[in-house]
Amino acid sequence: MSVSILFKQLEQGDRLALSKAITLVESQRPTHRKEAEELIQMALASHKSSVRIAITGSPGVGKSTFINSLGTWLMKTQSQKVCVLAIDPSSQKNKGSILGDKTRMDTLSAYEEVFIRPTPSGGALGGLANHTREAMLLCEAAGYNTLLVETVGVGQNEYLADKIVDCMLLLLLPNSGDELQGIKRGIMELADIVVLNKADSTDSKTLKQAVMDVKNALDYMPEKFAGWRSPVLQNSLNHSEDAETIWNCIQSFVKFQKENGFFEKKREEQKVEWFHQNLLNKLQVLFFEDEHKNAEIEKAFESWQKGDKSLSESTEALINSWIKA
Amino acid sequence: MSVSILFKQLEQGDRLALSKAITLVESQRPTHRKEAEELIQMALASHKSSVRIAITGSPGVGKSTFINSLGTWLMKTQSQKVCVLAIDPSSQKNKGSILGDKTRMDTLSAYEEVFIRPTPSGGALGGLANHTREAMLLCEAAGYNTLLVETVGVGQNEYLADKIVDCMLLLLLPNSGDELQGIKRGIMELADIVVLNKADSTDSKTLKQAVMDVKNALDYMPEKFAGWRSPVLQNSLNHSEDAETIWNCIQSFVKFQKENGFFEKKREEQKVEWFHQNLLNKLQVLFFEDEHKNAEIEKAFESWQKGDKSLSESTEALINSWIKA
Repeated sequence: MSVSILFKQLEQGDRLALSKAITLVESQRPTHRKEAEELIQMALASHKSSVRIAITGSPGVGKSTFINSLGTWLMKTQSQKVCVLAIDPSSQKNKGSILGDKTRMDTLSAYEEVFIRPTPSGGALGGLANHTREAMLLCEAAGYNTLLVETVGVGQNEYLADKIVDCMLLLLLPNSGDELQGIKRGIMELADIVVLNKADSTDSKTLKQAVMDVKNALDYMPEKFAGWRSPVLQNSLNHSEDAETIWNCIQSFVKFQKENGFFEKKREEQKVEWFHQNLLNKLQVLFFEDEHKNAEIEKAFESWQKGDKSLSESTEALINSWIKA
Repeated sequence: MSVSILFKQLEQGDRLALSKAITLVESQRPTHRKEAEELIQMALASHKSSVRIAITGSPGVGKSTFINSLGTWLMKTQSQKVCVLAIDPSSQKNKGSILGDKTRMDTLSAYEEVFIRPTPSGGALGGLANHTREAMLLCEAAGYNTLLVETVGVGQNEYLADKIVDCMLLLLLPNSGDELQGIKRGIMELADIVVLNKADSTDSKTLKQAVMDVKNALDYMPEKFAGWRSPVLQNSLNHSEDAETIWNCIQSFVKFQKENGFFEKKREEQKVEWFHQNLLNKLQVLFFEDEHKNAEIEKAFESWQKGDKSLSESTEALINSWIKA
């Protein structure tokens, strides 16, 4: 099947076509890559509007359940077409995946209007964020306008997520000062909105204190966007008013960004970043996955080991033999 | 002062010279880098033997206190010269540092035989591990034979640490099944030895159960080195017999690795990895920090944005103009 037919089907909301298209962008095979590039160009040209939201937090904070309830509410009451993707490149050794526990997203995954895609296993750091970025574009072309990206709060993933979404939403638990200590300062700094999840698991006094503690912590951090202090909200399962408050907050944040020119500026920067990443990946393939160049690298390594040359001298000599002056 | 005089002072155990030398390898300035390279070549040539141990675990697990007590015991009873370094590149946005809370290493830092070096702020991913690697070599040349590398258990740091040490020691808390869930599977898989820290904070029944739970979890993971099942030990503050058991276990592991050829093989692989990283860093500087090339990148980016070329076509054209055929 030609790529343009696949894209047409995808645009008409054919979920199978969307799945196939995402499989193509995730593939490492050169022929697939070429088709993937064509799909991405078409998706870029279709200029669909959307909100891209990363949902992050430590394991156990209830990300899947949160996504399930927020996503269901968005679809039912706001007529949003919701798509759920994931970033998790940190388990490089063992090929794990998040979104794996689909049972926690049972309600959401039952709906035709919702598209859920688990994380592909393996993949290089940075590469996986690129795949998620490309999958997002395809989902947008397919008419999904709220994109939820699940990511595990371990630091690196959040920096990657921040490079592909419009809004970073951090989930914390209300009953754990330790939790707050455990979450890295760097992750807190990236949060545009903080939600205390499972708020009904604690009494109102503890909850109030937790909101205060998080607000205090945020007060000591530099503003990510001048003029936006990250709000601290709460969420309980089956409290649809919480979903509404959170959604209103996300929309306020997007409105704030658009009014200040941050929204377009950030998306533009993200494209530049994407271009650089693509360039870097290509260079790595060229130098490190080429048999002839590998033999040269090995020879240069030996000359360093023998002490003929220093580390820098030997790598510089290699580079000079590769690059045009 | 000439580099060879600095190195001679360092070899004679001059701590100030060691500090100066590490500052040179951490520096980004080209002239410093040249001197750093000379120092590293001299350190490589001095072939001092050592054990390199990473101490990892979530925030709050007690890494600093553990390092303080193990290090003090090693120095006092085993006549080891102990050096403490750190890897923490994950807080890229805000320039934080671990080993910052020196008060937790008060005992250790008071001794002349001990060298403690906090993490430099900033620095690129991968780059910081390289600095730690180079600092380790300098410490070895200065006569330190037990190198403890502190790292925060967030995933990426552990993969970096595993590329520069001989033994990965993971600290867990005994009273938290949640803790065990929270720690990522990928980190557990990298552990050569697991220590339940603050063992005296819980009753013996809970502790026994925790040991069992961790052993069970490890049983489901692939062996990192064929023939070595990662032992699960315990540690309590001021129990010197715990320090002794842990040290014996580290030595058994090193002996096991040496007898099976894993030790030298791994150090060799680490050197190859180091070489590749150096090559990659140089390529990045060459392509992304050059004014002329940046202008070319910008032009290519624009041609992609206009839709003249696809993402891959525009980056490929760039690369072809740079690389010799």
